[in-house]
Amino acid sequence: MLRGLFTLAALVIGLLPLLSAAARYPSYGTLQTTTSSGVLNVVINNTYSTINLFDLHVQSDLANLIETLQANDTDIRVVVFSSANKQFFIGHIDVEYFLPGYASPLPLYDPGFPDMLFPVALLWNITQLPQATIAVVEGRTRGIGNEFLMSCDMRFASTAPSVLFAQLETSLGVNPGAGGGMYLSRLIGRGRAFEYVLSSADVDARTAARVGWVNRAFDSPRALHQYVQALAARIALFPAAGIIATKAGINAVSRPAREVIVKEAQDVIAALIGTPAVQGAFERFIRVTNNQSIGPVELNYGEEVGRLFA
Amino acid sequence: MLRGLFTLAALVIGLLPLLSAAARYPSYGTLQTTTSSGVLNVVINNTYSTINLFDLHVQSDLANLIETLQANDTDIRVVVFSSANKQFFIGHIDVEYFLPGYASPLPLYDPGFPDMLFPVALLWNITQLPQATIAVVEGRTRGIGNEFLMSCDMRFASTAPSVLFAQLETSLGVNPGAGGGMYLSRLIGRGRAFEYVLSSADVDARTAARVGWVNRAFDSPRALHQYVQALAARIALFPAAGIIATKAGINAVSRPAREVIVKEAQDVIAALIGTPAVQGAFERFIRVTNNQSIGPVELNYGEEVGRLFA
Amino acid sequence: MLRGLFTLAALVIGLLPLLSAAARYPSYGTLQTTTSSGVLNVVINNTYSTINLFDLHVQSDLANLIETLQANDTDIRVVVFSSANKQFFIGHIDVEYFLPGYASPLPLYDPGFPDMLFPVALLWNITQLPQATIAVVEGRTRGIGNEFLMSCDMRFASTAPSVLFAQLETSLGVNPGAGGGMYLSRLIGRGRAFEYVLSSADVDARTAARVGWVNRAFDSPRALHQYVQALAARIALFPAAGIIATKAGINAVSRPAREVIVKEAQDVIAALIGTPAVQGAFERFIRVTNNQSIGPVELNYGEEVGRLFA
Repeated sequence: MLRGLFTLAALVIGLLPLLSAAARYPSYGTLQTTTSSGVLNVVINNTYSTINLFDLHVQSDLANLIETLQANDTDIRVVVFSSANKQFFIGHIDVEYFLPGYASPLPLYDPGFPDMLFPVALLWNITQLPQATIAVVEGRTRGIGNEFLMSCDMRFASTAPSVLFAQLETSLGVNPGAGGGMYLSRLIGRGRAFEYVLSSADVDARTAARVGWVNRAFDSPRALHQYVQALAARIALFPAAGIIATKAGINAVSRPAREVIVKEAQDVIAALIGTPAVQGAFERFIRVTNNQSIGPVELNYGEEVGRLFA
Repeated sequence: MLRGLFTLAALVIGLLPLLSAAARYPSYGTLQTTTSSGVLNVVINNTYSTINLFDLHVQSDLANLIETLQANDTDIRVVVFSSANKQFFIGHIDVEYFLPGYASPLPLYDPGFPDMLFPVALLWNITQLPQATIAVVEGRTRGIGNEFLMSCDMRFASTAPSVLFAQLETSLGVNPGAGGGMYLSRLIGRGRAFEYVLSSADVDARTAARVGWVNRAFDSPRALHQYVQALAARIALFPAAGIIATKAGINAVSRPAREVIVKEAQDVIAALIGTPAVQGAFERFIRVTNNQSIGPVELNYGEEVGRLFA
Repeated sequence: MLRGLFTLAALVIGLLPLLSAAARYPSYGTLQTTTSSGVLNVVINNTYSTINLFDLHVQSDLANLIETLQANDTDIRVVVFSSANKQFFIGHIDVEYFLPGYASPLPLYDPGFPDMLFPVALLWNITQLPQATIAVVEGRTRGIGNEFLMSCDMRFASTAPSVLFAQLETSLGVNPGAGGGMYLSRLIGRGRAFEYVLSSADVDARTAARVGWVNRAFDSPRALHQYVQALAARIALFPAAGIIATKAGINAVSRPAREVIVKEAQDVIAALIGTPAVQGAFERFIRVTNNQSIGPVELNYGEEVGRLFA
């Protein structure tokens, strides 16, 4: 998708990929990688943000990582995403991005899919990586963070109280723009998708496992990581061609169509973002979250959402 | 959809909408409404029927209500449907409607969707209201009553023994004509949809919650209503545009397509209804239910279905 | 679909259908049938194989049975599949079929669907039988055996340790070629379908019931059979036209499209089978399973899959 582009983007942001000594794969500023027998472990760690914000650093690094993975369908057969921040697996999008005067060094639309906004194409590309993708969730994940989670093949979580899942867009007057509500409906059914997305609720890990938001929840981090590492190692035994073929088949019936995501999620949010109501909501959001930093609202958005309307 | 039409229909049926003193919304003969901070509470109460029959009174009143709601996408952001009849949340369709000689004052096809039968379009229109819609189920709901339930965004139920869910059409030689089996497959999966619809079984609330037919079941009516009122009040805080956008996105991937409902549900039942087998089944149904009134068969159809074939 | 063809096939294989004295339906070499008030009970018993292999005997007999059922949409309204082999409800495909030099007496493509391989069309035809179809699972079912299970309307299982469900294709470098991963995603959701299919795991009956792979699991074989016989007898009371109409409606939204199965499952595996990697995997599979016979690998493939790569 992004050949040639991210060299420039990385220069602009100042995050040139670093080659890890131990790994065959590069690490990036916000993504540390290690490899082990066909498994790439990626630890998300946005040190620019206390809430692991899905900001331009993360977007740029993920895009670079994905471009590398797209070209590698043999050595690496499984990718496992975890987080260094145990309070926030991965944050929501940087809302400042949508306020007037913000100039992004990243392209607005994706060079590979000119009808897709850059982060929307990024998540779409994750769904069709040639590797099996697994998310190991410790900490909160909301908004596009949860859409990132949906773009992985599988999701496993710890039952720690810090684990909370949410699509919070409706509370801000918009919709999940990368298709989060659509993917959710394929995991938890139409009725529960409406409930949780329309109410912008925080869902805990046990509930998430019961309804299918995550595959399974584990009461100890050790059990969680052991299960995922064993699962990853097992899949990594198998020939890449079978993984690719199996993923394509399941995607063909269970993934929302690209055109539907573009027209019924992305273009809808794009048309709403500039309205005064949403601009006002975003400004209040930045204020009550103390500019999207760790604090009562980011920690407990589900309970504190009323502050937006106080 | 129905502008201008229902004035006539209401005149014919004699159910002119009455303006409730306390409410900003009108009540209708079978639907009492009250409003509270962006939430419209609608109590279904068909006093013409002991089983809250989904008859022409209810159809006409619902159509009027929906027409009003369609034009209001700002003041009212959530609609909650409950029932005054604790034995029957809402009944099945009035089977007499399909017997020879019955002349309905309602149009056969919907003026807004000329390929859709009036009640089928009615339910379709509910799925795309600009408001979030929630059903609070105390009592039985079968046939088109359950299809009405499916057309709401979310469903919550009491675990009282009087709560039973069924698509009973197969037992009468037809199919759920407004897409009930299709919606169910999006909530409970393909395999369980086949089981419950083909067997025309009564499903209790705990089972319904476990498989996803309803979002959740509560052991006390108070807990049920408290949960739903809190959920409704929360969603009603949010801007209308976000609710509309989020609903459209989830509908785009999880709602059966309109054309599929028309061709594979509605037109199929329409072709079957006039056959001697179905006419005979409807006549027996009216007989064993004592003309669709409260009694052993309407109360326990799941167990008493054999009486149709005795 | 197959008119005129199977007389020849049966002659070639030497399995001319035998008329059972007690039954109105013929039995076949690997399928014993009995009828009871509109229910056809089919016991799968491939005595040519210790693992009830889905080989050409079974394929031919099933195709004959289905052809007969397709023409009978009135007397028989429910078909119940069970197994005489309590270790293997039905086996995976005969892998030898894909090795060089194997000459099948069956046509490669289906006469009724010239773009579908014979066994793929066979399973597709099961999904649209005019009868309700129920599988009663005691024993393992993997690969195309599980795809056969998916092609039935409903599935019930015993919780005996011998009951294990798997799509094992990925471990062999291919994909479920008759759409098993696609159907699974409609039963257990996208995330769990990825987990179980990509890992080629053995899933036990309790897990299968919890996630929706089967409708329900029973702790005793007697309870299992009693439930299914009662369910079948109930559905068999109902008019055939309603069963057909209800099935068509649910299929219209929950069954993977025929073209998608052909292009994204069948044609993908067909392109992979001849590759050296897959041919090698199949040869190793035959070796470690002692030519697909009962033994540690066929009994515990989920745990023994590593032997393929030793």
